[in-house]
Amino acid sequence: MYQCSLENMTEKIQTFATFGATGNGGITRYSLSKEAVMAREEFEKRMRKIGASIEIDDVGNIYATIAGEDADAKRIAMGSHVDSVLNGGNYDGILGVLSAMEVLETIVREKIPHKHPLTAVIWTNEEGSLYEPSMMCSGIVCYDYLPPQIQEKYHFEDMMDSKSIVDNKTTFGEALKRSGYQGDKKYRMTPEKYECIFETHIEQGPILEEHHKDIGVVDCVIGLMNYRVILRGQTVHSGTFPMERRKDAFYAASQVLCSLHEQIDALHIPGLVYTTGEVVCHPCIHTCVPDYFEFSFDARHKDPKYLKKVLEILKDCTKKEWSGCSCEIQEAWTRETVYWNQTLVSYVEKAARDLGVSYQYIHSGAGHDAQYLGYMLPTTMIFVQSKGGLSHCEEEYSSPEQCTEGASVMLNAVLMADMAEEL
Amino acid sequence: MYQCSLENMTEKIQTFATFGATGNGGITRYSLSKEAVMAREEFEKRMRKIGASIEIDDVGNIYATIAGEDADAKRIAMGSHVDSVLNGGNYDGILGVLSAMEVLETIVREKIPHKHPLTAVIWTNEEGSLYEPSMMCSGIVCYDYLPPQIQEKYHFEDMMDSKSIVDNKTTFGEALKRSGYQGDKKYRMTPEKYECIFETHIEQGPILEEHHKDIGVVDCVIGLMNYRVILRGQTVHSGTFPMERRKDAFYAASQVLCSLHEQIDALHIPGLVYTTGEVVCHPCIHTCVPDYFEFSFDARHKDPKYLKKVLEILKDCTKKEWSGCSCEIQEAWTRETVYWNQTLVSYVEKAARDLGVSYQYIHSGAGHDAQYLGYMLPTTMIFVQSKGGLSHCEEEYSSPEQCTEGASVMLNAVLMADMAEEL
Repeated sequence: MYQCSLENMTEKIQTFATFGATGNGGITRYSLSKEAVMAREEFEKRMRKIGASIEIDDVGNIYATIAGEDADAKRIAMGSHVDSVLNGGNYDGILGVLSAMEVLETIVREKIPHKHPLTAVIWTNEEGSLYEPSMMCSGIVCYDYLPPQIQEKYHFEDMMDSKSIVDNKTTFGEALKRSGYQGDKKYRMTPEKYECIFETHIEQGPILEEHHKDIGVVDCVIGLMNYRVILRGQTVHSGTFPMERRKDAFYAASQVLCSLHEQIDALHIPGLVYTTGEVVCHPCIHTCVPDYFEFSFDARHKDPKYLKKVLEILKDCTKKEWSGCSCEIQEAWTRETVYWNQTLVSYVEKAARDLGVSYQYIHSGAGHDAQYLGYMLPTTMIFVQSKGGLSHCEEEYSSPEQCTEGASVMLNAVLMADMAEEL
Repeated sequence: MYQCSLENMTEKIQTFATFGATGNGGITRYSLSKEAVMAREEFEKRMRKIGASIEIDDVGNIYATIAGEDADAKRIAMGSHVDSVLNGGNYDGILGVLSAMEVLETIVREKIPHKHPLTAVIWTNEEGSLYEPSMMCSGIVCYDYLPPQIQEKYHFEDMMDSKSIVDNKTTFGEALKRSGYQGDKKYRMTPEKYECIFETHIEQGPILEEHHKDIGVVDCVIGLMNYRVILRGQTVHSGTFPMERRKDAFYAASQVLCSLHEQIDALHIPGLVYTTGEVVCHPCIHTCVPDYFEFSFDARHKDPKYLKKVLEILKDCTKKEWSGCSCEIQEAWTRETVYWNQTLVSYVEKAARDLGVSYQYIHSGAGHDAQYLGYMLPTTMIFVQSKGGLSHCEEEYSSPEQCTEGASVMLNAVLMADMAEEL
């Protein structure tokens, strides 16, 4: 069994944590921002140093490849993203990129024989926190392989026109051009050139920690439904309009949300999670009763029958008025549970077992670039324990030891895939 | 009794409704915007046409004055604002300016004798919808006369530094400079130069309509308390974190809001209104549980003892956790009930009675420039019926007849003040 270097991994984590550092222990590194470009340049510099060739496709995805013994073999890839949410942490996404770098560096340094070319990938704009949607550029690359309801979210032209949520003006296409990372479409990942792909990622949940496991062998990304819940009332002045005749959309939304919790929680569905994380309020000034309030509703479960039950409750909410306001729901998107390639999953487990790290099987509740790649190529993921289960926040943490274990598991799983006859 | 012209008033309403027209029947006319400058220029042009002299103070307030028979007499003023909220209507604010113009035009056209110089005023940035706070430039002008807790909101330097809520960059001071409306401090309204002031405004509530009255004789602006309610939880990922351990600040805020309604409504306090119109959510993305949610809480009643009861309920909310989130409240501002000058109120009533318009006594629930002027000068207001009680929205409407009645009432009340020995 081969081991990655704790020292090198620690240094990488620390160095990349400076690109976009908030000063509070976390980072804000929006896709294609100055800070993200710094991380990309550091990636390129280090990959060139070990002799990797760099290719950049038309949506800024970067592929750093070291040659294998068989010049005709397809590439085995590893990758994740360098962009973050606002006030995010130092692990979500970037850990998968650092692990891929660490795997390639270890292979080169230790002269580990391998047949296939091996590629470390940075996917552009996974978070979608400045330019929606999330997983944008893995979505574009996998476009032809996606189910229709996901595919329609990733039309190339729509993506280029996606506007910054901050200035509502700059488009993703403009930001891409300005970043200097608009390469050539011919470099996109395809099944003709690539054999399979691995993604190492933090768990973003508390399950591994609770079970005292460092590593998660991921078997699937669980299905989800994502809706917008919209309440419409009437704007009136705060000081002059009698209470009993108001139609307050924020109050109505609060009633709907409390009712949803009451009804859904009463079902006691194990493993179900649902989140109402984004809100829109209009006109959103303290002297006006809101006439419009919208919130996101995202529910996730491996078994579609439970999501169907939740959807029924959501639909029921639209059948009545809430404090005089109408309620409607709009489907934003859904995805079915995506299962990973069973052979790759077994390599990850074998690598973890042989290395003697503590591990368990786990589902991914979050979406990742890997989930779209899974429609195109044999794919799997490796999870690293998240302290307190926290992510998308500055407190996000995995120990250097755990991160190095994750990279070592990926290294050995990649080498098993390298020797496999077929996946 | 003198009458204003229905035809002229109708034309004015229609003309000024074009400055910032949204195409949906309303306007967006932020203070000092291109649209607001168009309205200001039209005001100046028309006032110059009737021989008024124009003065502009250092915060852009415009004073258009026609001379009276007594060159030493103090000025009698009338005024309101031309700025609006986002997607506001064609009456809030602008009606007070149009009425003042109409009064001056009628006096000049009909050669109505008057002793005092008479002034029509535009107050800059009443809504505070782009640059907070509201009633900014009447607040600055009345600064020395305001109670300390209001005064501290209107420090001149703070006002100049107030940042656009849209780009979070442009300051009010910069916008003022760029607008060309930064005049001289010596032109500010003062008690040495001005005798008293009237403000005509739409009711912004449904009371006059319900009672079939066109005109409200306003006796006070009712007191208010304005707080921020803040819930703090923990950001975790939407797909990975078990429900029972979440600390969801938006859900907690919804629970607080529902509980506030339940408790406050149970008190059955006649005339009490409270509004939660502004929200802040962080990080406000659909894949994150919010760790922070803040909403405004504005309650208004003439009698401070009822506001005290509401505050107790608000304070009680901070004594427990809501879905694992802490709750705190912060006082934003409060104001005591401001009573109008009783002599001026009696003139308004006499004018309405003598003109034969339908009227009643009424309180103002909303804040107006007049309320700060009331600390400095004898002040009063005239309300015009609002259809459906709607305001701060595009549906805002008062009929041309009602608007003209309002102007006629102000005209005759101003002429009574002109003849008074003292107020």
